[in-house]
Amino acid sequence: MLSTQSLHSEIDQVMNRSGNAFLQYRQIPAAKRAEFLLAIAQHIEALGDALLQTAAAETHLPMARLTGERGRTVGQLTMFAQMLRAGDWQELIINTAIPDKNPPRPDIRRMLVPLGPVVIFGSSNFPFAYSTAGGDTASALAAGCSVVVKAHPAHLKTSILVAEAIKAAAIETGMPESVFQHVEEGSFETGKLLVQHPATAAVGFTGSFSGGKALWDYAASRTNPIPVFAEMGSINPVLLFPDALETQYATLAQQYAASITLGVGQFCTNPGLLIAIEGAGLSSFVEELAKHLQEVRSAPMLHTGISDAYAKKVASALSIQGVQWITTQPSAIEMGTALPVLARVSASDFFHNPTLHEEIFGPYSLLVVADSAEQMMAVLQSVKGQLTTSLMGTDKDFAAFAYVVQEASLVAGRIVCNGVPTGVEVCDAMVHGGPFPATTDSRFTAVGVQSIKRWLRPVAFQNFPDTLLPDELKRTNPLEVVRVEK
Amino acid sequence: MLSTQSLHSEIDQVMNRSGNAFLQYRQIPAAKRAEFLLAIAQHIEALGDALLQTAAAETHLPMARLTGERGRTVGQLTMFAQMLRAGDWQELIINTAIPDKNPPRPDIRRMLVPLGPVVIFGSSNFPFAYSTAGGDTASALAAGCSVVVKAHPAHLKTSILVAEAIKAAAIETGMPESVFQHVEEGSFETGKLLVQHPATAAVGFTGSFSGGKALWDYAASRTNPIPVFAEMGSINPVLLFPDALETQYATLAQQYAASITLGVGQFCTNPGLLIAIEGAGLSSFVEELAKHLQEVRSAPMLHTGISDAYAKKVASALSIQGVQWITTQPSAIEMGTALPVLARVSASDFFHNPTLHEEIFGPYSLLVVADSAEQMMAVLQSVKGQLTTSLMGTDKDFAAFAYVVQEASLVAGRIVCNGVPTGVEVCDAMVHGGPFPATTDSRFTAVGVQSIKRWLRPVAFQNFPDTLLPDELKRTNPLEVVRVEK
Repeated sequence: MLSTQSLHSEIDQVMNRSGNAFLQYRQIPAAKRAEFLLAIAQHIEALGDALLQTAAAETHLPMARLTGERGRTVGQLTMFAQMLRAGDWQELIINTAIPDKNPPRPDIRRMLVPLGPVVIFGSSNFPFAYSTAGGDTASALAAGCSVVVKAHPAHLKTSILVAEAIKAAAIETGMPESVFQHVEEGSFETGKLLVQHPATAAVGFTGSFSGGKALWDYAASRTNPIPVFAEMGSINPVLLFPDALETQYATLAQQYAASITLGVGQFCTNPGLLIAIEGAGLSSFVEELAKHLQEVRSAPMLHTGISDAYAKKVASALSIQGVQWITTQPSAIEMGTALPVLARVSASDFFHNPTLHEEIFGPYSLLVVADSAEQMMAVLQSVKGQLTTSLMGTDKDFAAFAYVVQEASLVAGRIVCNGVPTGVEVCDAMVHGGPFPATTDSRFTAVGVQSIKRWLRPVAFQNFPDTLLPDELKRTNPLEVVRVEK
Repeated sequence: MLSTQSLHSEIDQVMNRSGNAFLQYRQIPAAKRAEFLLAIAQHIEALGDALLQTAAAETHLPMARLTGERGRTVGQLTMFAQMLRAGDWQELIINTAIPDKNPPRPDIRRMLVPLGPVVIFGSSNFPFAYSTAGGDTASALAAGCSVVVKAHPAHLKTSILVAEAIKAAAIETGMPESVFQHVEEGSFETGKLLVQHPATAAVGFTGSFSGGKALWDYAASRTNPIPVFAEMGSINPVLLFPDALETQYATLAQQYAASITLGVGQFCTNPGLLIAIEGAGLSSFVEELAKHLQEVRSAPMLHTGISDAYAKKVASALSIQGVQWITTQPSAIEMGTALPVLARVSASDFFHNPTLHEEIFGPYSLLVVADSAEQMMAVLQSVKGQLTTSLMGTDKDFAAFAYVVQEASLVAGRIVCNGVPTGVEVCDAMVHGGPFPATTDSRFTAVGVQSIKRWLRPVAFQNFPDTLLPDELKRTNPLEVVRVEK
């Protein structure tokens, strides 16, 4: 732990270096930045099993999951590299001059440019895909921003290995020194200083509500406020409609038992809230779901901080009047591990207990039982902003409940029909975002190539000769990029 | 003036009505919303000379200017209507399912949806184009948001006339009651309550830094922070390069005298800062510019609050050591009017006086004289975020100073080459925005059709049958809108 003064001075140096690197990096052609991203992917792959083993030891995540997540990380870097080459990410719009118009229209050409140095806080639950070289870093580097990553203390060694890969790729492809920097000092104060530094232009965060909101508050209280994209908690409501419950309860129970327990429930898209109307179908579903969940053995969570918080929050939720524990209460579980928990509560008790609306990070799901279709909708309307909402229904259900799509789109950034919210596809159309408190800005996504938009701002060039225009906007279109001309 | 309690209850009712209207309005097809916008344009035109005369009496703006501004307002409404019909504003992206992928890719379809009720604070200097039915209102209504406009007290009667036109258009085209509401209570407290109300989803503002920043702070301190797009002050630096000054000083002086005094300098893009290197060319330019400015007679400003502030801020700037008044100091000027003022200061004095970096709203411009090209760049680097930066140079100048384009794009949202910053074309490529404090979010523009993006957020529909999808995303594309399919 550094002294306050030397921490201050270290962060100051890091951010000033990042500011200088940005001034060079933003001028590097997009095609060159694409090479850099691909080189990062190669260097990560070159770390081989050593990287996977380090991450497994630090996070307790199984090798199969880590292998998949590494593939996803490499895939993200590759997708951003492809996008940089196509050029449409820059929203190039050209209005040519109309001298006869009154008043005459000048030639105006618009493109997106990078914001500046971006500070990124990696997540605990995605040591690769949403940490050091994850989606935030890949999108910010693609945008032309220099990046400072604050390593997540729970997987510091993994983070150092990946940071070294990024640095090697930067050297190999001739990027400015300090285009990427890795801050290993794990204190809360470090994060605060990084967000408050004058050179910092934007912040990316994936984690808890309290962590994200604190960073957002620091950014908002700067003399010049800066954008913070924090992806925070979500309970991901799932609406189980009557006909589906009656006719498909066994399949639904199987599907949701798997989703609730996937990765020991350590996903921000974990289905933490099931909403249904009382009835025979629901009873059969609950019985089946509880049976499946009880077959799942306790498993280690990412770290003891998380397993302790899980145990504490579950206990607190279950102590609320009206909340019933459905899965069998375990006698004792091993330190650092977690068991799936299914609880139930009536809609009216749910309405009156704000605690039940909060995320419990882990393999926990609360079933809210409504006495009518109207009350079921009221439960959906009562929840805060969410990353996802899932709708489980038959054609018959949707004929009766078609309006639920409207309601769901008011609440969440992604709506899943007859599927599970876990498993976030990295693609162009993906939205991993949603109204506050799911994120601090619902206008952006954290997953998929559109996430680059968080780190870009438009600039218009008016009446410019080709000699002074960026290549993307020259009349001759030398880069052959996609442009809209009007 | 209402009592605090009744004001509270009135704002509460207004915003709750807006929330309910939003739930209906967001479901109205875009093509219908386009009809609404066109009807607003027609109803504004139907107000005829009565509207122009009311605005002229309230704002002291000349009829020619008001006629032009009304045309611009009608034009903006028409452009948004056209955009709604084309559909590309919704960023429709479709990723079809790839069942063979590991893991399988589901069908994911993304579109933009409206944020919710938007509160808009009109500007004093654009009674039509950036007030009641101006760009903010037009873009928010186009997006599918309900709108609450707080009337600008300086042109309340004009605002009421336009508000009636919007309401008539809403009735005529069958829009929900309260899709648009007009708050006439002018107090600061009213604005605060509007921004703090739980139903408010976003805020648009055009005006002073202090006003915009106060609203931004209210929004940031909410339990659920909401986006505020405030377009605030700007001094719009103009770089005058040596060869241009030497060979074109007379033309430049004429051009800039007109830009500085256009509309009595009451434009947010007014060139308030001229930057040049000491030399014979500059002396000739200054002499010519002063001559032109002195030929301009005093003219009434929008209201006495603005003319008083202008007189006070000019006097304060001129009292700073090293600042020289170049135009002749007038003996006395008529109450409510303003005369153009040109002052000069050395770059080193400019660096040390933060007051000189602040906007003085009116026909004022400060010439900063540098002793070298490096110092000229340092002046540009020392200013805060700006709406525009203008570069006045010959080919010879730009051969020597090509790097200024990079520097300028760090500072501003629009860069003008050999032109004046006043006159903001409403088109697709326009960027009327820029780094803080020019605006509170540099990632958006306030002028042009792209400004709709301020009020929209993406939603992804995963694994949806056509029956439940919004028309924009159905497999059959019944609306025949522009979509990207990958």
